[in-house]
Amino acid sequence: MADTWLPSLITATPQEGFELAITLSRRGVKYTQPDAEVLHKLRPEYANDHAALTAASQVVATNFQTVAAANNYWRG
Amino acid sequence: MADTWLPSLITATPQEGFELAITLSRRGVKYTQPDAEVLHKLRPEYANDHAALTAASQVVATNFQTVAAANNYWRG
Amino acid sequence: MADTWLPSLITATPQEGFELAITLSRRGVKYTQPDAEVLHKLRPEYANDHAALTAASQVVATNFQTVAAANNYWRG
Amino acid sequence: MADTWLPSLITATPQEGFELAITLSRRGVKYTQPDAEVLHKLRPEYANDHAALTAASQVVATNFQTVAAANNYWRG
Amino acid sequence: MADTWLPSLITATPQEGFELAITLSRRGVKYTQPDAEVLHKLRPEYANDHAALTAASQVVATNFQTVAAANNYWRG
Amino acid sequence: MADTWLPSLITATPQEGFELAITLSRRGVKYTQPDAEVLHKLRPEYANDHAALTAASQVVATNFQTVAAANNYWRG
Repeated sequence: MADTWLPSLITATPQEGFELAITLSRRGVKYTQPDAEVLHKLRPEYANDHAALTAASQVVATNFQTVAAANNYWRG
Repeated sequence: MADTWLPSLITATPQEGFELAITLSRRGVKYTQPDAEVLHKLRPEYANDHAALTAASQVVATNFQTVAAANNYWRG
Repeated sequence: MADTWLPSLITATPQEGFELAITLSRRGVKYTQPDAEVLHKLRPEYANDHAALTAASQVVATNFQTVAAANNYWRG
Repeated sequence: MADTWLPSLITATPQEGFELAITLSRRGVKYTQPDAEVLHKLRPEYANDHAALTAASQVVATNFQTVAAANNYWRG
Repeated sequence: MADTWLPSLITATPQEGFELAITLSRRGVKYTQPDAEVLHKLRPEYANDHAALTAASQVVATNFQTVAAANNYWRG
Repeated sequence: MADTWLPSLITATPQEGFELAITLSRRGVKYTQPDAEVLHKLRPEYANDHAALTAASQVVATNFQTVAAANNYWRG
């Protein structure tokens, strides 16, 4: 991907870290399916499917583990 | 998300840590589907589906790993 | 949840640690579906479904990772 | 479970560690479905189902992570 | 596989690390199905399937954990 | 299993480590279904199924985490 979207894993707060984990999870999809239109078309399906929403939360949880470790759990 | 919901990963007890993992898991869903009404409508489906309940517990287990590590396993 | 069910992650033996991981996995379900009657009704389905049993073992394996790390792998 | 089946996570070799991970994975099933007859009846289904075999290998991989860390990766 | 495709886990930036995780995830498929034609034929199916795209992002998240740890989270 | 197939987790390079992770993943299947003929019969199914190929890559990613940690990420 041409754009620089991941300069660092360091964030100021846990919440920003969680939102970076959301970004990482979405990029994991985007690298596989770069066509934004296709992704937009798929949204109504997964956004109303509990299994899909739970699977998405699982990816976020895995990426949040990485970001939290990178930030030493924001233990200051 | 506008509200500040994740100020810290540090909790007083393992049980509070587990409940934070529940929060993280639900937020992972909410960031994907912010419409509370949709989530409410989906509840009867997943709350009576053993595969969905197990998948939810898997997300909690992953987030609990993160919270437990953040709290050095509450080893005092 | 009102009751105090998770005072500590520390256990005397690996087997007790594995049994704590079972408890954590079941609580991950219970926080999502607190109605014991519903869970009881679902049991015949998942207890005779190999995919469900494997998925349950996956949750236990993830929670056991956390408990084992908390106990420094019972290396004494 | 009454029997003592998990006295320690320490094994002499990585292969014994992998076999302990197999045991942990099967116990994760057995704690959920203790009836050996039911498990025996389910075997033809999952033993000939590639998705089930891969899911089983995923549980073993997760438990092997735990056992390997417990043994400091048998780095002597 | 004959070609040398993984000389190191070290990358200059987190984004390069994420792209290495993408490579690891695709190689995990390629070692199981080396026939590029088959993989090409499968693309329309998974690239338009939200569950498949989420599962792919889950593999990337797991591999990114490994690459990030290898690079000490690019904490410089 | 009688044969000694896992003497060590240490490999010379990351690529050899990835290939060991492939071996661990396949052994995780083989310990559950030792009949090579059955596994051979299943191959056409999973080798042409994107969900199965992604699930296989997920197992490899988990095992590669273990092997990479064992080798201190080949940081020399």
